[in-house]
Amino acid sequence: MYENKSIKKNSLRYFIEVSYNGKAYHGWQNQPNAVTVQEILEHALTTLLQESVAVVGAGGTDAGVHALQMFAHFDTASTLKEQDLIFKLNAFLPAAISVIALFKVTEEAHARFDALSRSYLYRISTTKNPFTTDFAYRFTQNLDVDAMNEAAKILLQYVDFQCFSKSNTDVKTYNCKIKHAIWKQVDDELHFEITADRFLRNMVRAIVGTLIEIGTGKLQVENMHTIIKSKNRAEAGYSVPAHGLYLTQITYPDSIKQQ
Amino acid sequence: MYENKSIKKNSLRYFIEVSYNGKAYHGWQNQPNAVTVQEILEHALTTLLQESVAVVGAGGTDAGVHALQMFAHFDTASTLKEQDLIFKLNAFLPAAISVIALFKVTEEAHARFDALSRSYLYRISTTKNPFTTDFAYRFTQNLDVDAMNEAAKILLQYVDFQCFSKSNTDVKTYNCKIKHAIWKQVDDELHFEITADRFLRNMVRAIVGTLIEIGTGKLQVENMHTIIKSKNRAEAGYSVPAHGLYLTQITYPDSIKQQ
Repeated sequence: MYENKSIKKNSLRYFIEVSYNGKAYHGWQNQPNAVTVQEILEHALTTLLQESVAVVGAGGTDAGVHALQMFAHFDTASTLKEQDLIFKLNAFLPAAISVIALFKVTEEAHARFDALSRSYLYRISTTKNPFTTDFAYRFTQNLDVDAMNEAAKILLQYVDFQCFSKSNTDVKTYNCKIKHAIWKQVDDELHFEITADRFLRNMVRAIVGTLIEIGTGKLQVENMHTIIKSKNRAEAGYSVPAHGLYLTQITYPDSIKQQ
Repeated sequence: MYENKSIKKNSLRYFIEVSYNGKAYHGWQNQPNAVTVQEILEHALTTLLQESVAVVGAGGTDAGVHALQMFAHFDTASTLKEQDLIFKLNAFLPAAISVIALFKVTEEAHARFDALSRSYLYRISTTKNPFTTDFAYRFTQNLDVDAMNEAAKILLQYVDFQCFSKSNTDVKTYNCKIKHAIWKQVDDELHFEITADRFLRNMVRAIVGTLIEIGTGKLQVENMHTIIKSKNRAEAGYSVPAHGLYLTQITYPDSIKQQ
């Protein structure tokens, strides 16, 4: 009989949708000697379902990065009462992690491999706001938002983004299809929205840092082409802090849902 | 010659408008063995102006209470470059305190005595939101908002609010003119707005706790009359936590401004 460690015998697969404040956590993905969202979620599910539960996330978020929407899948031998379990999980989990939804999916649905797109938001606070210290990157120099938007458009002309990737990653390809990249003024903040099929490690923060350097005039809009073509992280701008970054949306084909 | 300790010789009086995140502070008003917003502001002004500066606030806020708008006055022998000083203060002050404005007022203008009205906001979060843990009171029981609004209207029929006052205060009168008191649904939060000429210590939090008890059915709308008439704090509801409370606006007559 075919053995698949990730699929329990006689088990059902579920997707769980969560939101979390990244401040207290060392990112999503489990790692030694650090508290991660994945670990806390696995502990909560294991405790409440009284069986060992492993969750597989749609992808990692780095230490300090927030998520308005993150999906993960897990298998359970229990038949879940979804609304009841959501209520219990939210009572059990710390205030910084919230469960939004829980739904049955097909046996082989995969939170990471089946994701069609990921969207991120980066918040820059242009004034001193005592209430967004943990939620937006305060940047007080003047920024040329038109130039930043021109440069953001150039991202859509390329597919290889090695120039914005951490050098010590073991990815097979640096190709990403960026579908949307735009800056918007929202009250006293600047918001950068970006959507792609996938992102490389640290990519959004390196893109935002590069666009900020274009906004301050340290780099020119046309430099985007040479930076991307260089495939060299050192050519791009700095990496902005994690606390302004939010994973906002992950999309899946409707067909993964099971009635 | 008439001596007035609060007015320096050859000095000018200024109003300073600040906003602060109350989480880190033991309220506005100076007190021994506690870090207060007043103390930090006095230290910043004293350092930057190189003269001893005392600030007089529009009123106190309790430990943990936030302010979107707080005014204070101070006297200085220096002629201030307002925009330059605001910039320096914001660089000097911690991230949790922001200076919004600074303007010259008449010699006897008083931040506390000249205030015409104060407005507060209380935020209740009705869902588990990982991003508002420090900014709204999470309350998950069902609330009858219509009943809470009916009861809030009753506040406008009375003037003596001893029933909502801390018992160990040394105020001369418990009279307050409440001009506005209303609950509003704002996304996944319930907001209570209240405006009066003055407020007693802990009054807004005691009113909100009482209205919540009406919202859950523990108290009836008509109980508001007996509670207020009793002048007894023990008759009213519980005091809700500080972290959901915001001082939002203080108004003054235009005549205090000096050109």
